[in-house]
Amino acid sequence: MPESGKRGAKKSVLVVHGPNLNLLGQRETDVYGTDTLSDIDRQLSSLGAELGCEVETFQSNSEGDLVSRLQGAREEKDGVLINPAAYTHTSVAIRDAVLALGLPVVEVHLSNIHKREEFRHRSLLSDVVDGQVVGFGVDSYTLGLRALANLMARP
Amino acid sequence: MPESGKRGAKKSVLVVHGPNLNLLGQRETDVYGTDTLSDIDRQLSSLGAELGCEVETFQSNSEGDLVSRLQGAREEKDGVLINPAAYTHTSVAIRDAVLALGLPVVEVHLSNIHKREEFRHRSLLSDVVDGQVVGFGVDSYTLGLRALANLMARP
Amino acid sequence: MPESGKRGAKKSVLVVHGPNLNLLGQRETDVYGTDTLSDIDRQLSSLGAELGCEVETFQSNSEGDLVSRLQGAREEKDGVLINPAAYTHTSVAIRDAVLALGLPVVEVHLSNIHKREEFRHRSLLSDVVDGQVVGFGVDSYTLGLRALANLMARP
Amino acid sequence: MPESGKRGAKKSVLVVHGPNLNLLGQRETDVYGTDTLSDIDRQLSSLGAELGCEVETFQSNSEGDLVSRLQGAREEKDGVLINPAAYTHTSVAIRDAVLALGLPVVEVHLSNIHKREEFRHRSLLSDVVDGQVVGFGVDSYTLGLRALANLMARP
Amino acid sequence: MPESGKRGAKKSVLVVHGPNLNLLGQRETDVYGTDTLSDIDRQLSSLGAELGCEVETFQSNSEGDLVSRLQGAREEKDGVLINPAAYTHTSVAIRDAVLALGLPVVEVHLSNIHKREEFRHRSLLSDVVDGQVVGFGVDSYTLGLRALANLMARP
Amino acid sequence: MPESGKRGAKKSVLVVHGPNLNLLGQRETDVYGTDTLSDIDRQLSSLGAELGCEVETFQSNSEGDLVSRLQGAREEKDGVLINPAAYTHTSVAIRDAVLALGLPVVEVHLSNIHKREEFRHRSLLSDVVDGQVVGFGVDSYTLGLRALANLMARP
Amino acid sequence: MPESGKRGAKKSVLVVHGPNLNLLGQRETDVYGTDTLSDIDRQLSSLGAELGCEVETFQSNSEGDLVSRLQGAREEKDGVLINPAAYTHTSVAIRDAVLALGLPVVEVHLSNIHKREEFRHRSLLSDVVDGQVVGFGVDSYTLGLRALANLMARP
Amino acid sequence: MPESGKRGAKKSVLVVHGPNLNLLGQRETDVYGTDTLSDIDRQLSSLGAELGCEVETFQSNSEGDLVSRLQGAREEKDGVLINPAAYTHTSVAIRDAVLALGLPVVEVHLSNIHKREEFRHRSLLSDVVDGQVVGFGVDSYTLGLRALANLMARP
Amino acid sequence: MPESGKRGAKKSVLVVHGPNLNLLGQRETDVYGTDTLSDIDRQLSSLGAELGCEVETFQSNSEGDLVSRLQGAREEKDGVLINPAAYTHTSVAIRDAVLALGLPVVEVHLSNIHKREEFRHRSLLSDVVDGQVVGFGVDSYTLGLRALANLMARP
Amino acid sequence: MPESGKRGAKKSVLVVHGPNLNLLGQRETDVYGTDTLSDIDRQLSSLGAELGCEVETFQSNSEGDLVSRLQGAREEKDGVLINPAAYTHTSVAIRDAVLALGLPVVEVHLSNIHKREEFRHRSLLSDVVDGQVVGFGVDSYTLGLRALANLMARP
Amino acid sequence: MPESGKRGAKKSVLVVHGPNLNLLGQRETDVYGTDTLSDIDRQLSSLGAELGCEVETFQSNSEGDLVSRLQGAREEKDGVLINPAAYTHTSVAIRDAVLALGLPVVEVHLSNIHKREEFRHRSLLSDVVDGQVVGFGVDSYTLGLRALANLMARP
Amino acid sequence: MPESGKRGAKKSVLVVHGPNLNLLGQRETDVYGTDTLSDIDRQLSSLGAELGCEVETFQSNSEGDLVSRLQGAREEKDGVLINPAAYTHTSVAIRDAVLALGLPVVEVHLSNIHKREEFRHRSLLSDVVDGQVVGFGVDSYTLGLRALANLMARP
Repeated sequence: MPESGKRGAKKSVLVVHGPNLNLLGQRETDVYGTDTLSDIDRQLSSLGAELGCEVETFQSNSEGDLVSRLQGAREEKDGVLINPAAYTHTSVAIRDAVLALGLPVVEVHLSNIHKREEFRHRSLLSDVVDGQVVGFGVDSYTLGLRALANLMARP
Repeated sequence: MPESGKRGAKKSVLVVHGPNLNLLGQRETDVYGTDTLSDIDRQLSSLGAELGCEVETFQSNSEGDLVSRLQGAREEKDGVLINPAAYTHTSVAIRDAVLALGLPVVEVHLSNIHKREEFRHRSLLSDVVDGQVVGFGVDSYTLGLRALANLMARP
Repeated sequence: MPESGKRGAKKSVLVVHGPNLNLLGQRETDVYGTDTLSDIDRQLSSLGAELGCEVETFQSNSEGDLVSRLQGAREEKDGVLINPAAYTHTSVAIRDAVLALGLPVVEVHLSNIHKREEFRHRSLLSDVVDGQVVGFGVDSYTLGLRALANLMARP
Repeated sequence: MPESGKRGAKKSVLVVHGPNLNLLGQRETDVYGTDTLSDIDRQLSSLGAELGCEVETFQSNSEGDLVSRLQGAREEKDGVLINPAAYTHTSVAIRDAVLALGLPVVEVHLSNIHKREEFRHRSLLSDVVDGQVVGFGVDSYTLGLRALANLMARP
Repeated sequence: MPESGKRGAKKSVLVVHGPNLNLLGQRETDVYGTDTLSDIDRQLSSLGAELGCEVETFQSNSEGDLVSRLQGAREEKDGVLINPAAYTHTSVAIRDAVLALGLPVVEVHLSNIHKREEFRHRSLLSDVVDGQVVGFGVDSYTLGLRALANLMARP
Repeated sequence: MPESGKRGAKKSVLVVHGPNLNLLGQRETDVYGTDTLSDIDRQLSSLGAELGCEVETFQSNSEGDLVSRLQGAREEKDGVLINPAAYTHTSVAIRDAVLALGLPVVEVHLSNIHKREEFRHRSLLSDVVDGQVVGFGVDSYTLGLRALANLMARP
Repeated sequence: MPESGKRGAKKSVLVVHGPNLNLLGQRETDVYGTDTLSDIDRQLSSLGAELGCEVETFQSNSEGDLVSRLQGAREEKDGVLINPAAYTHTSVAIRDAVLALGLPVVEVHLSNIHKREEFRHRSLLSDVVDGQVVGFGVDSYTLGLRALANLMARP
Repeated sequence: MPESGKRGAKKSVLVVHGPNLNLLGQRETDVYGTDTLSDIDRQLSSLGAELGCEVETFQSNSEGDLVSRLQGAREEKDGVLINPAAYTHTSVAIRDAVLALGLPVVEVHLSNIHKREEFRHRSLLSDVVDGQVVGFGVDSYTLGLRALANLMARP
Repeated sequence: MPESGKRGAKKSVLVVHGPNLNLLGQRETDVYGTDTLSDIDRQLSSLGAELGCEVETFQSNSEGDLVSRLQGAREEKDGVLINPAAYTHTSVAIRDAVLALGLPVVEVHLSNIHKREEFRHRSLLSDVVDGQVVGFGVDSYTLGLRALANLMARP
Repeated sequence: MPESGKRGAKKSVLVVHGPNLNLLGQRETDVYGTDTLSDIDRQLSSLGAELGCEVETFQSNSEGDLVSRLQGAREEKDGVLINPAAYTHTSVAIRDAVLALGLPVVEVHLSNIHKREEFRHRSLLSDVVDGQVVGFGVDSYTLGLRALANLMARP
Repeated sequence: MPESGKRGAKKSVLVVHGPNLNLLGQRETDVYGTDTLSDIDRQLSSLGAELGCEVETFQSNSEGDLVSRLQGAREEKDGVLINPAAYTHTSVAIRDAVLALGLPVVEVHLSNIHKREEFRHRSLLSDVVDGQVVGFGVDSYTLGLRALANLMARP
Repeated sequence: MPESGKRGAKKSVLVVHGPNLNLLGQRETDVYGTDTLSDIDRQLSSLGAELGCEVETFQSNSEGDLVSRLQGAREEKDGVLINPAAYTHTSVAIRDAVLALGLPVVEVHLSNIHKREEFRHRSLLSDVVDGQVVGFGVDSYTLGLRALANLMARP
């Protein structure tokens, strides 16, 4: 039986959703489409199965809870996919938690943050993650998971 | 019997107090006066009654809890009066929650933030709320509620 | 018979309208509504009566005339309500005249200046007035007058 | 027989490689790996076949030639995948050519440009493309092609 | 029997540890050494006994919880020793809580923040605390406690 | 008989000269030439006749008078040609007056302002006028009038 | 028979069009109109004839080719009319070529660059040309040619 | 009989006082002392007599009137002493008028502007006047007149 | 017999000349004139006698020596006249020495520093001295001494 | 007999005091207290004895002398404690001397420099020393010596 | 027979001249002298012979051609001497090509770029070349070649 | 017998070494090599002999002494070679001394200052010297002396 996570046969991935993403599909549907967060999580699970990864997802509006959950991933997971949403631009604490992970980390954004307000152009995470996927809606998540799977497969 | 909130006969208002406002009336009383947060809430309730609004108040020191409470207002309330205190200057997450509200929102500040430290002059909310009332102590709240009542009365 | 102004039984208020406000109601009516400056002045007079204040209004496109009129208020008036319009962002002379007043002063703006061009975000008056009301259309004036009445009532 | 490009059954994609990318696999192999540009082009062709896209690739060190090639894509192609390399940060001309394309465009970078020199953080393209994939080496290209395929499939 | 805290014979000190400090001794041990947070707390307790202070420690990843705990210290403690970690650079709310304390406060940092990323050079606390000890690893805490003891001993 | 202005057969143009332009031809003649303001006005009248426009000119050193004159043009004129001189760089009030005009407006400068002091490079008008003619001496006015005539001729 | 160029009876003018202008009339026709570059060149030829100038035109997407063509004009032409398009904001090489010309040079822009992105407000040419015509569509070229004709006529 | 002004035996000086200086001696007397503007003018007249200068003084709150008065000095006066007050920091028009004077000009300030708000440190006049006297109260005027007398005495 | 300095009948003044001023009269005589530093010192002595002040002068190229000499003035002198020359823009140490003086201090400059290089516009002394005299050549010193004499005469 | 310095049984420490610190105890005693520099030196000697260090102290107002003394410490001392005072913010030369030391160096400041003028917030030394102690008056020195003793004790 | 280049007995050097340098000796001869580019090339050849280097020279106005020529030097040459002229300040592509060279590279400039326009002070090459020679006219090239010869001679 | 210096047959050169250069060869030998300052001085003497120059060298850690020595060179020397070391970035006084020299001056740096800390990129001397040689270790001095010899040889 294939065991999962931390050097098991199957890789274990944590997907972290930042603040206000729990509203997805309910607000500004012209921008973000009608997919809800559950829809995204289902797509990631299914793609994960295909790529040989077990996917766990976590959403919180609280910076501290996101930090704590990321800390927990150090011992349990093989990689992290994170959409830090509003905290992208303000949270040094999440940056520090990512720095302490010692795992492959991929940052994703639904919208093209470079087309939005000036203060959204600066990301406090971008220079401490492995890579970014930006601007493809839900595809940002699935492409990000593919990228992460490849990163985790490196020796 | 008059029903309240969300298109009922009576309007329903959420008043949001940011971090450290629970200390009001106990610290720096020469600046902020001796009114406590309960005193303010009572004044708002009473003025609300006069203006035909039901007023619910919420205070938290946690950015995440403020975000979550604002999200809840989308379905239940007709308008929001917010004093984001210290988060005025740092929280993109509260800004995003306000953007998602789709309700009239009025921002208030007890003190004149333009007379204080440089970093307090920039507000991350000011361009996404309807209007601001700044610098009149407790009157900032009551004038803000009057403004909000008028905004909610618009067709 | 109640006397007015400068410590009389009735308070005397000067309302100062800056440049281009004489065009109100004629231009950009989708933004500013169809109320003319006379309409606003009438509303302020009527609210003033209710609050026990005599209201005099003054409009000019000239920075120098606005400075001179403000200087005159020192001896005659108990408070000033000012919408400096374009001079908000450029006039140190009006700022100096306000500094010399020694009276309660309230700054109001019809539109939310923080939603407009970058150079409109900086106000040269905001740190020398008592408080600001911003973004509520004509209500900015009436709420500002209420705030001023309370400030004048302080011992 | 399936026709390709511009509304044919098969989509036609132009892949544009900017200056110095012709050296790939020969310099700084610790950073960029040992894959050459031909290797990448072969992988894109093969993935394109899988996704139903015909892939043509173009490399130049000359800003003007890149502009001219992009202009040509307007009539012949259904989407563009571009790694502008050094011109990312300096070329308004390529930006203008992309603006004139009227096609889905995806920007990719081999390395994480946010971990490099300050002047590499600013991209003159990022706010005019649909999305970006940054930092995954050769995977940036393949993930970018997947994203582009999805964008071209939208009605 | 000597009573402690708030004007008792023995001084009572709150030590506040900011986000990610719970991971101490487990990550980046080449930078921070192998001491865990419990080790530090034990050293502070023991030094506190020597200096006549009772030491209570508190760690949280949540900005709101740190604010609330600081508020509680107003009535119960004689001084605060704080390592705000990542919140040093972003939290106006913790700054406001410190401003409201009315107690001696000492800020400490394990590493020399001036040798790190540009954004870590600015501290939002440094001008509202009494003093800083920066860059001596665990010694930053013990020297900070000595400094605090002297500050509390002043009349 | 051809009537002029506001939709008459003949177009009516206001030419506005800013502060210190009344000195033209008397100062710095090496820079500005020996033409006086009357000379320029005569040339514009004559060219206007040729282009089917009636030209009225106005000069003032007072920002307020310039604002008031511009306001008057709303009802009477078909287009405005303006050399705001020193107020180019400092007057938000003239900018607001231009915004309220609802007419074609052309900005002209005698000298090449980009060759002069840094603070003369920024124009507060340039993004609210239709176009600019800069640096050709008196020709700036005549070319500007030609441009304006074409703009007024558009349906 | 009238000879042309370089001190001949007839003046000889080089018109230089920068990158992407070859697409004129095909893209963003709501902004730039439906005139193609050939249409413009024809209008300039015809106006040139009227003003006694022979007009040669040159377009390239390549910065280097534009530099080389400008260098050639030194010996052959009497004046240059240039629309540097995207290179306006980035090319020091074209600036240097213009500096070396020793001829009257007029810079033109179809659109009002001051209404566009921030980075388009800075021109690297504006302080080394004689004057600018900005924002009048095709009229920018014809007015620019008139201005140039006058400059060439000066002794 | 000694004639005065413009190359007569006696020198003729214009003293220009900017906005709000008419209030001198009535406001902020702890800062500016109790001398009124008439007191200053009398001292200057008297010192002028001693130095062989006829002194005329002019005060206005209007930027335009100050510009016009300065223009008039070109033909009638031998030197100008100016305290531009608030317009020091905002008026390019007064700067231009001073540039056009072709006379010795001395700038004075009652208070030390470098000890005041940041925006008062920048003077738009300082690099076009001959010299400055700053911070000595009424003495700034008298010392400035002495300096001007020496400048006018130079061949 | 009248005693001098520190509260004696006669005032005692230290004149401090900064680096390179020993070269005065030998270099750039078109800018600074042909007066040497001895000439200036003689003029100051003689004017001092007239104003009832004993004048001692000191020049050094060394920042440290200037600091030490200023320290010595605390006990011996009644006022300081200082031309800090190049150290105006770089020396916090001289600023600190001036702050510690507790005496009237006047800052003078021979040339108008605002007409020179950008970095000469900022003075590290200007907000800690009583006043400044700038741009009048040797007269800057004599006017500065007059100003200082008046400051020392205040009770 | 225990030998001292450079790897002897006893450690040898150089304490360096920057400009104006020789005035300590005589100026601004409300800020700095009444301790003189000798008092501080005595306390450091006595604490040094306790910690097994021989302490030599050096004060100078001259940047060059401070540089030379630091250079001398390379061969003779085991650690340096430095209060660079005003040179903290301006001296690259002292920074270079510290860089060349190859010894543990601790920077101390009597006052909290972050509460003072903007230009005092930047230290040119902070990123080349081991750590800083800031704001505790004389305690800054004694705590700094403790920190240095621990650093010197490391293998 | 001595072989040349790439580890042969004789070193092989590429000299690269940027845009507009082909005009040397024909324009601005007061600044650059009357030497043409051929003159310089001849001097370099002759000095190269003396220093044991074979010198090949290349000039282009095209950024792309310069990049391509630099790429070619990787395999064929032992060192590069480059005067990037205008591209010094704008070309990231040339910087990248230099980074990929893996050879000693020396940057030279004829004029002192620090005495020219602000934007010429920043060089995009200066931190990736070995050293710079700036401001000595043709000597900059010959001194640069000497420096390069020494660099190539290092083991 | 050939006389030296100031228009004699032999040229006389002053070589000025700034602070900390006396440590050369003893610190950071991996960066600066093992040559001491005496070694460099010997090389310069010997090369000077070859070029017909007498070379005198001077090193000091004191800004004031460097200024004074430079002043002395005015009368005695024909040219100056200066490595201002740390004072490059902070000394306006040395800049002023160089400005007063009226001799050819060459600035040299051992290391490539553009590869080092941000604040080392700005030189206060670079725009007042004739040229710079940067980054070639000891060769910077010898190449600089060659450049200087050529400059002194110009008529």
